[in-house]
Amino acid sequence: MAKPTPLSGFPEFLPAQRFVEQEVIATLARTFELHGFGNVETRAVEPLDQLLRKGDTSKEVYVLRRLQEDESGKDKGIGLHFDLTVPFARYVLENAGKLEFPFRRYQIQKVWRGERPQEGRFREFAQADIDIVGRDVLPFHHDVEIARVMLEALGRLDFLPGFRLQVNNRKLIQGFYAGLGLDADGIDDVMRLVDKLDKLDPAKVRELLLTDAGVTEDQADQALALATIRATDDSFVARVRDLGVTHDLLDEGLDELASLVRACAPLVTERTRIEADLSIARGLDYYTGTVFETRLDGFESLGSICSGGRYDALASDGRTTYPGVGISLGLSRLLVPLVQRGVLTADRSVPSVVVVAVTAEETRSEADAVATALRARGIPCEVAPSAAKFGKQIRHAERRGIPYVWFPDQGEVKDIRDGNQVAADPATWQPPTQDLRPQVVTTTISEGEPS
Amino acid sequence: MAKPTPLSGFPEFLPAQRFVEQEVIATLARTFELHGFGNVETRAVEPLDQLLRKGDTSKEVYVLRRLQEDESGKDKGIGLHFDLTVPFARYVLENAGKLEFPFRRYQIQKVWRGERPQEGRFREFAQADIDIVGRDVLPFHHDVEIARVMLEALGRLDFLPGFRLQVNNRKLIQGFYAGLGLDADGIDDVMRLVDKLDKLDPAKVRELLLTDAGVTEDQADQALALATIRATDDSFVARVRDLGVTHDLLDEGLDELASLVRACAPLVTERTRIEADLSIARGLDYYTGTVFETRLDGFESLGSICSGGRYDALASDGRTTYPGVGISLGLSRLLVPLVQRGVLTADRSVPSVVVVAVTAEETRSEADAVATALRARGIPCEVAPSAAKFGKQIRHAERRGIPYVWFPDQGEVKDIRDGNQVAADPATWQPPTQDLRPQVVTTTISEGEPS
Repeated sequence: MAKPTPLSGFPEFLPAQRFVEQEVIATLARTFELHGFGNVETRAVEPLDQLLRKGDTSKEVYVLRRLQEDESGKDKGIGLHFDLTVPFARYVLENAGKLEFPFRRYQIQKVWRGERPQEGRFREFAQADIDIVGRDVLPFHHDVEIARVMLEALGRLDFLPGFRLQVNNRKLIQGFYAGLGLDADGIDDVMRLVDKLDKLDPAKVRELLLTDAGVTEDQADQALALATIRATDDSFVARVRDLGVTHDLLDEGLDELASLVRACAPLVTERTRIEADLSIARGLDYYTGTVFETRLDGFESLGSICSGGRYDALASDGRTTYPGVGISLGLSRLLVPLVQRGVLTADRSVPSVVVVAVTAEETRSEADAVATALRARGIPCEVAPSAAKFGKQIRHAERRGIPYVWFPDQGEVKDIRDGNQVAADPATWQPPTQDLRPQVVTTTISEGEPS
Repeated sequence: MAKPTPLSGFPEFLPAQRFVEQEVIATLARTFELHGFGNVETRAVEPLDQLLRKGDTSKEVYVLRRLQEDESGKDKGIGLHFDLTVPFARYVLENAGKLEFPFRRYQIQKVWRGERPQEGRFREFAQADIDIVGRDVLPFHHDVEIARVMLEALGRLDFLPGFRLQVNNRKLIQGFYAGLGLDADGIDDVMRLVDKLDKLDPAKVRELLLTDAGVTEDQADQALALATIRATDDSFVARVRDLGVTHDLLDEGLDELASLVRACAPLVTERTRIEADLSIARGLDYYTGTVFETRLDGFESLGSICSGGRYDALASDGRTTYPGVGISLGLSRLLVPLVQRGVLTADRSVPSVVVVAVTAEETRSEADAVATALRARGIPCEVAPSAAKFGKQIRHAERRGIPYVWFPDQGEVKDIRDGNQVAADPATWQPPTQDLRPQVVTTTISEGEPS
């Protein structure tokens, strides 16, 4: 076969790049588990009727067909999941009798969307989701918990650029609009238009509010004034109060958002920040309270890399309703641009710390014995593939970024970075901790700069 | 939505069951990395023309179609991969200029086949593959390496039943048949029929050898005599020699197989065994030397749970050929039956070691502070969801299998398994190591017994 060409929209990593992704996944998983989140993996497919319930994503679904499927139609339609929320909601309903609520789970899997590939948009990509689901009720403190867990997880990824978790609350927005005198339809219309502020000029949005949503000039100005409010602490409450609008739901939303921002304050660092941004609504999605988005410093054009919120009915079987709160990290959206631009890579392409040299094929078993002794003590290593000249065996290590070469005949190990060679016993020799695993290496390249 | 029903052939695990799978994957990955294998993940899809090159699997391929795909045919046909070898061969060719050879990789991913679901056969299942690929050449010692790495990896999974790695060598079989005077077509015919010995009676196979393959009675008897030879050491060599057949390729195969069995001997334990089984041919697959199969003690009806071998041309771009040797563990084939029959589970359904009790909602932050201190020291925990009576909070822990409940007011922690309650400081308290993570629990149930 001729050399294959990559499939657009289906990114893949070289081994050193994949190590970066593994490190990120391991750090996320460790953090989620520290907070009591158990892992779940769902099948890649769902029945088409479930996937197509959300009309606006229908065109993105990949439908599956067996190559020699019979025409009898006995095979029910299935397709690949386009997010991890639809399968998780189904999993909760299917296993409700066997799960303990509140149920915390994390899920790190690929999802597929047949949309046009472009920067930061892929046809196959990985997501890392955390959700907490209750039966019938789920107290608000779980919204705070979700925010804190994701802040901590992203904060631990210290080789990533800094980021800003932006939070808002749908009760706050909807209560404010209701306080302006709008009805349910009017609230939806205004929310949909104000949500366009990240793409449209405020003047244009104001015009649409007047013409499309049919609100008064005062209502439009008030809605736009609310959307300009941002704060890194609970000072936004006073600024909203200053607008003079009152409503019970607004009070509830302000209380929730203020306590969320206050509870996250201890986690704030220079890299890890939180901001109440009252323009964020997350479109017409199913959110009913807290909403989250996340912007990566210097990579704002990627859009939100981590989004979610509170939904009062994640799932329902007609008798029981399962409210939830969750947030989804776009793992590929975050990593693929950083890796492809060379901002992130690893310092070697293999796990091996040591290449054990082979003096002659007849004595390969001596090299094997050294390797076995090192591995028994948790030191990854490989034995040279051939009894080539030592210079060639050293270059074998160099090309892979492996820091040490062991010479069994001499009973010595060489750090090929500085050439230092010392006597060593495979039963006791220990490399420095930072050499034990490949390390993530960062290069500072700002957005848009060629790699 | 009504309670969903499972999709046949798409197995899913409950959280405690998924923990077993995570433990297996982590142990495999750790072992592979100790031997210098780096991780690779390939996209789930491949071009259809690549997937359909092996005619006999074509009916199993799942074809992908975007829901609103235009009819212009601009979208090239793609389908889900049915194994990890086809995508890996493509990955090697696509990235050959960026990889270092010999290239060791492990890959643990789902694959999909549209075949009829049955015991041990799924439409979606996970595999764990290791392969070593060379450019132009790949010395035989890598065959030994692959066998040893997988023996070590399976050996570390000490909660699994014992197993037997069965090895043979295609050069041995083909050289023997050539020594009997058969030509290339005759060798293929006999190999294909002898491979049916696991399903057909030897007398029936003998009859087919005479009628279908057209060999002489003596040739048939010799072929069947070879296939009966099994040995856990290199004594099979003398038994083959006793059959009186000679051929250079036979000698080469005997040498390779004998040195492989000898090199694996140090890894043999009561649970971890190796056996030369001269009946194994792996069908008409692309193998050209060493072949592997694996049987699980007490679960022989699952078939081979781990198979592979040497292929002299894993991939080729016309100018360069990439020989490889590898083995593929059927992770789902192995785990799904054991988990579904209740042989394997975990002792809790969440990662949490501790539930921190909440005395009143107003003092939830005190419980949060205890949890934060425990997590900072690597102890997974969760805070009780409500300030219910302590009895209810203890039952919350019990139902999840969480061993400890922490009472911040009293500054005490209770081991709810034995009721022992002691004063404790979240800055210093340490649970026993075996409590830190969920543990895999095994129940002895032999094959066929109802769970």
